[in-house]
Amino acid sequence: MNDNDNDNDNDSERFKRGWEKLREIDGDAGEKVIESLKNIAPDLARYTIEFPFGDIYSRPQLDLRSREIATVAALTAMGNATPQLKVHIHGALNVGCTPQEVVEVIIQMAVYAGFPAALNGAFAAREVFAERGMIED
Amino acid sequence: MNDNDNDNDNDSERFKRGWEKLREIDGDAGEKVIESLKNIAPDLARYTIEFPFGDIYSRPQLDLRSREIATVAALTAMGNATPQLKVHIHGALNVGCTPQEVVEVIIQMAVYAGFPAALNGAFAAREVFAERGMIED
Amino acid sequence: MNDNDNDNDNDSERFKRGWEKLREIDGDAGEKVIESLKNIAPDLARYTIEFPFGDIYSRPQLDLRSREIATVAALTAMGNATPQLKVHIHGALNVGCTPQEVVEVIIQMAVYAGFPAALNGAFAAREVFAERGMIED
Amino acid sequence: MNDNDNDNDNDSERFKRGWEKLREIDGDAGEKVIESLKNIAPDLARYTIEFPFGDIYSRPQLDLRSREIATVAALTAMGNATPQLKVHIHGALNVGCTPQEVVEVIIQMAVYAGFPAALNGAFAAREVFAERGMIED
Amino acid sequence: MNDNDNDNDNDSERFKRGWEKLREIDGDAGEKVIESLKNIAPDLARYTIEFPFGDIYSRPQLDLRSREIATVAALTAMGNATPQLKVHIHGALNVGCTPQEVVEVIIQMAVYAGFPAALNGAFAAREVFAERGMIED
Amino acid sequence: MNDNDNDNDNDSERFKRGWEKLREIDGDAGEKVIESLKNIAPDLARYTIEFPFGDIYSRPQLDLRSREIATVAALTAMGNATPQLKVHIHGALNVGCTPQEVVEVIIQMAVYAGFPAALNGAFAAREVFAERGMIED
Repeated sequence: MNDNDNDNDNDSERFKRGWEKLREIDGDAGEKVIESLKNIAPDLARYTIEFPFGDIYSRPQLDLRSREIATVAALTAMGNATPQLKVHIHGALNVGCTPQEVVEVIIQMAVYAGFPAALNGAFAAREVFAERGMIED
Repeated sequence: MNDNDNDNDNDSERFKRGWEKLREIDGDAGEKVIESLKNIAPDLARYTIEFPFGDIYSRPQLDLRSREIATVAALTAMGNATPQLKVHIHGALNVGCTPQEVVEVIIQMAVYAGFPAALNGAFAAREVFAERGMIED
Repeated sequence: MNDNDNDNDNDSERFKRGWEKLREIDGDAGEKVIESLKNIAPDLARYTIEFPFGDIYSRPQLDLRSREIATVAALTAMGNATPQLKVHIHGALNVGCTPQEVVEVIIQMAVYAGFPAALNGAFAAREVFAERGMIED
Repeated sequence: MNDNDNDNDNDSERFKRGWEKLREIDGDAGEKVIESLKNIAPDLARYTIEFPFGDIYSRPQLDLRSREIATVAALTAMGNATPQLKVHIHGALNVGCTPQEVVEVIIQMAVYAGFPAALNGAFAAREVFAERGMIED
Repeated sequence: MNDNDNDNDNDSERFKRGWEKLREIDGDAGEKVIESLKNIAPDLARYTIEFPFGDIYSRPQLDLRSREIATVAALTAMGNATPQLKVHIHGALNVGCTPQEVVEVIIQMAVYAGFPAALNGAFAAREVFAERGMIED
Repeated sequence: MNDNDNDNDNDSERFKRGWEKLREIDGDAGEKVIESLKNIAPDLARYTIEFPFGDIYSRPQLDLRSREIATVAALTAMGNATPQLKVHIHGALNVGCTPQEVVEVIIQMAVYAGFPAALNGAFAAREVFAERGMIED
């Protein structure tokens, strides 16, 4: 009755759906995050696949491009999650945002979270764009 | 040379453009904010019109719907600016987001800023939707 | 393949387990939160039951008393989620923390998040203790 | 050896110095905070007097006016401690800042913490100025 | 009367008690922090010993294991104090938390502060566990 | 009709005034920030010059020393903008704050944002002081 391990057949659907969604959005960058949790918190890796990707990003109520705009905005504004911001700048580009749109969202955060947040977001974008060969670092 | 009062002809273009943009996006809710600053920090009211609206929201690089998604996401995630979140939930609806899309952005913030941020964002949306007669409060 | 509605048989186990856990920990205060989401974001209500309570609080790796100490600490430190802090002060008391222990965790947050966070946490505790008839408000 | 109650002769000097400093800076507003902790966390009240006021504000390395500018700036930027911000807007005025200077610090926070933080800081200032009869509310 | 230097006989008891407590909880990691403040802010080093450790952690109202759970939770949730989080992951292990319990607290923070905070907390734990030879880095 | 590119004659006054102010306050450190935005978000560079420096820091209502105290306080308290904090520690020294005053503001933030924020602020100050040859690193 109290089987509190969700890694059962019941949830394998969410996991599978989440893994595919994570691959679609974040690509290699997302897969690396999951991999890096293996020897410290594998259950957190599983939850990361199941809830954000299997549940939330799989919902049809909002297109993926809008979702990534929301995520880049939030992570830029919070300013304390640079690695995740970089993963989702990749994600935004992967689902069809233009580099200019990503930068535009980041610039807008100067209004809501201050210039330091926007500047640090821009520097994160510069790193991602350079990784993708889109600009010289 | 040292005229540090920006309220001159040079900037009246930004102010006018900002005021129109603020009216377009935030409507009465935005105007009330500006009004409420009159007897305490009128210059902050002017800056609020000039920079966020005259400069940022007037840029053509991103559509207003995407901009409001970004703002609702950021303010929900930050969790310490409820009055402004409510103004921009109005704003999102004013520029064409559906109520469902607004709620969807807020739900997504559970992933990035935690469930309390998403819950409080949802309660803010409920208040705004009720003000607009879209749901029973 | 694209069934992105989790509200199926596969997940009903998580939901049921989550609901019972939420009832056990947060009692009426938690149930009221879920109720209040009904007309604005019912899916967020479901996720709140499934993930935090069905997944996380149901894990046997940490006792509920320690979990509530962690939650009261985090919400006090973050300082932007007073309603949730109050729910979890109830929660902490419900799972066996003494009022003194709850206050002690809150005082400790002065060290990590500053005195305002600790003061506002203490005021939240005072409200909860008064609701429970433990002190005069 | 294990006397962990600091309320002994050794510390009474800090407490007395802190109480006088709190009275000098925050006046009635500060005293009310201390009073309000009495029935929930009296030790936190004592620490609030001893460390911030007995230790920090009593240091001669920085004048009180500069200290209050720093505090108003920080609390405005953090945006999650409105009651304490209001106490320290009183404090800033009590130690010689002009209302215009207080507002100026708050406006400046738009740059570092975003416009919502500055707007909410301005609204807090308006309440304090009205309490002091300096403006019509 | 106005001796605002606390480094006197009156406070040496708090300092001594604090130093022993810091040694007991944080061990070498804590001592290194204090050392690193020597040439920039020695008074902050002294306060760090006196208030958090001499006052708070020395209070008998809560056991050290619960205190470290609270601190790991708060610092993970805040997400802007990685060096201090690592010191207190050491601290948690030093006072009797198991590695699994530490990870469990960090995972739980996904609920309250979002997945990025939990992920970054897990990466901090991985570094600490590797330093202690508990896992391969 | 509404040329929303601000890079016109109308705004060149703000830009020029801002650039001179940025040079006066932040010196080379500020100029490097602007330079580093060139290939990723040049418009954000321009806004950084125009609004914070051309508008805010150019206002006569508060002296630059007080402004830098406010900024160092806020950035230390927020704890998620270390590069900008370092630029403004340079700035504070450039406009006449003594090193001791800068450190004092940072220590005070322990009260409002917790000890980790103050410690990390002190480490940022140590780096800046070492860059300027004021202390051994």
